[in-house]
Amino acid sequence: MEIEPPLGRYRIRLGAEVAEALGTGTPVVALESTILSHGLPRPRNLEVGAEIERTVRATGAVPATVGVLGGEIVVGLDAEQLRHLALTDGVAKASVRDLPVLAAKRGDGATTVASTAAVAAAVGIPVFATGGLGGVHRDAATTFDESADLGTLARTPIAVVCAGVKSILDVPATLERLESSGVTVLGYRTDQFPGFYLSDSGYPVGWRADEVSEIAETLRATRELKLGSGAVVVANPLPVSEQLDPALHDRVLAEGLAGLEREGVTGKDVTPYLLAHFHAATEGESLTVNTRIILRNAELAGRIAVAFAGTRTALA
Amino acid sequence: MEIEPPLGRYRIRLGAEVAEALGTGTPVVALESTILSHGLPRPRNLEVGAEIERTVRATGAVPATVGVLGGEIVVGLDAEQLRHLALTDGVAKASVRDLPVLAAKRGDGATTVASTAAVAAAVGIPVFATGGLGGVHRDAATTFDESADLGTLARTPIAVVCAGVKSILDVPATLERLESSGVTVLGYRTDQFPGFYLSDSGYPVGWRADEVSEIAETLRATRELKLGSGAVVVANPLPVSEQLDPALHDRVLAEGLAGLEREGVTGKDVTPYLLAHFHAATEGESLTVNTRIILRNAELAGRIAVAFAGTRTALA
Amino acid sequence: MEIEPPLGRYRIRLGAEVAEALGTGTPVVALESTILSHGLPRPRNLEVGAEIERTVRATGAVPATVGVLGGEIVVGLDAEQLRHLALTDGVAKASVRDLPVLAAKRGDGATTVASTAAVAAAVGIPVFATGGLGGVHRDAATTFDESADLGTLARTPIAVVCAGVKSILDVPATLERLESSGVTVLGYRTDQFPGFYLSDSGYPVGWRADEVSEIAETLRATRELKLGSGAVVVANPLPVSEQLDPALHDRVLAEGLAGLEREGVTGKDVTPYLLAHFHAATEGESLTVNTRIILRNAELAGRIAVAFAGTRTALA
Ligand SMILES: [Mn+2]
Ligand SMILES: [Mn+2]
Ligand SMILES: [Mn+2]
Repeated sequence: MEIEPPLGRYRIRLGAEVAEALGTGTPVVALESTILSHGLPRPRNLEVGAEIERTVRATGAVPATVGVLGGEIVVGLDAEQLRHLALTDGVAKASVRDLPVLAAKRGDGATTVASTAAVAAAVGIPVFATGGLGGVHRDAATTFDESADLGTLARTPIAVVCAGVKSILDVPATLERLESSGVTVLGYRTDQFPGFYLSDSGYPVGWRADEVSEIAETLRATRELKLGSGAVVVANPLPVSEQLDPALHDRVLAEGLAGLEREGVTGKDVTPYLLAHFHAATEGESLTVNTRIILRNAELAGRIAVAFAGTRTALA
Repeated sequence: MEIEPPLGRYRIRLGAEVAEALGTGTPVVALESTILSHGLPRPRNLEVGAEIERTVRATGAVPATVGVLGGEIVVGLDAEQLRHLALTDGVAKASVRDLPVLAAKRGDGATTVASTAAVAAAVGIPVFATGGLGGVHRDAATTFDESADLGTLARTPIAVVCAGVKSILDVPATLERLESSGVTVLGYRTDQFPGFYLSDSGYPVGWRADEVSEIAETLRATRELKLGSGAVVVANPLPVSEQLDPALHDRVLAEGLAGLEREGVTGKDVTPYLLAHFHAATEGESLTVNTRIILRNAELAGRIAVAFAGTRTALA
Repeated sequence: MEIEPPLGRYRIRLGAEVAEALGTGTPVVALESTILSHGLPRPRNLEVGAEIERTVRATGAVPATVGVLGGEIVVGLDAEQLRHLALTDGVAKASVRDLPVLAAKRGDGATTVASTAAVAAAVGIPVFATGGLGGVHRDAATTFDESADLGTLARTPIAVVCAGVKSILDVPATLERLESSGVTVLGYRTDQFPGFYLSDSGYPVGWRADEVSEIAETLRATRELKLGSGAVVVANPLPVSEQLDPALHDRVLAEGLAGLEREGVTGKDVTPYLLAHFHAATEGESLTVNTRIILRNAELAGRIAVAFAGTRTALA
């Protein structure tokens, strides 16, 4: 049998505030960094990063933005580290399988939904806020292009607050994959799966939760029962009054999809391309909506984390 | 790191007889409840539930029907609890991902192949009898509709006795998924995968077992080797003399599939619709055959459980 | 709860030299046996088996060829056992799900990429050399035919040195599945995924490693971080000067695929058929190239195993 060294060299580093919060049972919300490095334009991305953290704090929880610096995975980036990932060129978009490579190469990376969820769960953070999940791509029946987010969510017992999946994906196929792989999906105050920029994707969810306490109890049950169900996806739609205008959305999406094909954009370049297209074609309105989404999700995630901490001692 | 409470609030409750059997090493067979709540018409479903349990008892094993009552997962429903799930409207069809939601909502649920297997394995029951497995749907190449049963079977080291998969599914695609995900498939006294209502689906299985002892040893090897193979699917065909008339089967299946499309039936409504159609169009003969299948599977599962208990002490 | 016996009856047997090497921290490289029993013609297969082991030894590592004899899984076959698997008819091609069946039936089996990786990881061998991985078949969009290698690689933290996937498969779909399931892919001194007989499949890899030490550190990080990333696939291309002539390759592949269809060859028979066709149609040149591939991969795997053993004590 292999003999492991007494101390591994590759570990996850906790920021000081996050370490203390986890030690004392203070609620913590994990946050991804890809939205900052790859999802929003500079320097607005850095401002949004700070707003997200303030929003989490306002609920009584501690924000823990995850990223990779010089190969080290950090949970709870400080202001200087956030600035570095937000403003430096060449930061890798790092899914779970990229983390060991970055560790070995001592590279910088921004974490995706998959890698943020995996890292958060590993250090004991049960709640995570993002904008939208990755999913099944529209041409996946022939290309097999499916986000690694799905595989990680299938095995990670964490609550992920999102506004559905990006409208550039195959939404019903993504919902089927979530079902096949045992991921719980809860609509927060809705029976419909949200459509990211839109309040309603047009597809229903199986379960609805009207109260944060119900989400917290579902998460508690997932983690205590340990029956192999994966993440609890909390689908948090924008109010209709705050969504992108549906007619504008549909036109811009169609243009963007046509642009991908015309310009031969594929793989990891698709999401940044389409987000940039939405930004340009909506004259910045998509950026405003995107920011609203992540702030609303951070706020709900904070409230879930606080409620979840409360469930812990309910019978003590 | 998160500090878990000394006692979780969400646990699986064992019926008294099942608890005693597991404590003393008496063979136990897990049984699903969806076939009762969603698979068979009332009140025949309640009678069949009792017949299944008697069939298991006749082999020397204890039956453990699984269900969710007021949010609590129960292994070994008593007669009153069985009656409640069989005769009450609004009982949810609960796969693994639904169990935490039902726990939080304190709802009632009938367990599927996936959730019954996961719960049984969690409490140490190594054998499970059902009618047919879920699988890949006929239109899955575009819809991605694949049963969550497959994902759970891929990671759960339990013997599942079935008569193949329902003929409404894509049988060869289902067999490929079972192969890809490392699920062992054994034909019991056959080289052909059974076709649920029919003795032979037209597709071969890779391995055949002619003796119950061989199945029990395969299951023992799966559980001791722990190499990541999943369930041991024991494919138990109806004798040719007891199958549904093949010509009738093929006609009714074609009509049913056409009806789904015509009436726009999808998702979780498909199986109940088609079973009802088979029932009506075969004038009850499909119900008789379905009942034969589950009773035969319960009987074989009981014998496997007894044999498996014997392998435990073979070297003691 | 089930009471397990003090000693299971089904275990993995280590050859004497492998047991000693694992006990003393000597580097070990796992090797599959399907290439010997099903991949190469007799008696050349037996010679190649011996050459592979000598190649591993020359790097300072101990070879551990895996196989199943009389139902027992052996890690580190001796010369007599190797001869038996290489020269006997009726040896099963055993993936992970077949191992429990062979154990129960006391059968003989040659291990695939999946089963060799699973067994090697179970006994603490971190590096494995093969020729090519299994993957997504060309018609998988409708047949769902995908190798069980992919599922095992997704959950097994082992380095697998290969020359890509066999050109008979759907290479881009296989790369997508590796990405979706969190398998790290590193090109060794290349930015392109190799095409087995050809140096370049035409598809890029996301990461490149120019030094063996970097591969060893990536593997170390995978195993210490434990974040759910799977195998580290080390893609090791033939030098352009040693590949099969691309024009010959393309012609023979097209002929072989046509032959499959014409003769109705499917499933587990496809790979042996196509390898035999390549052998015949290239007048033995494909066999020479195939042998070069496995020897080069064995050599690189040995160097990775030696470097990996060095990373263990780097901080001691
Ligand atoms: Mn992709
Ligand atoms: Mn479905
Ligand atoms: Mn196959």
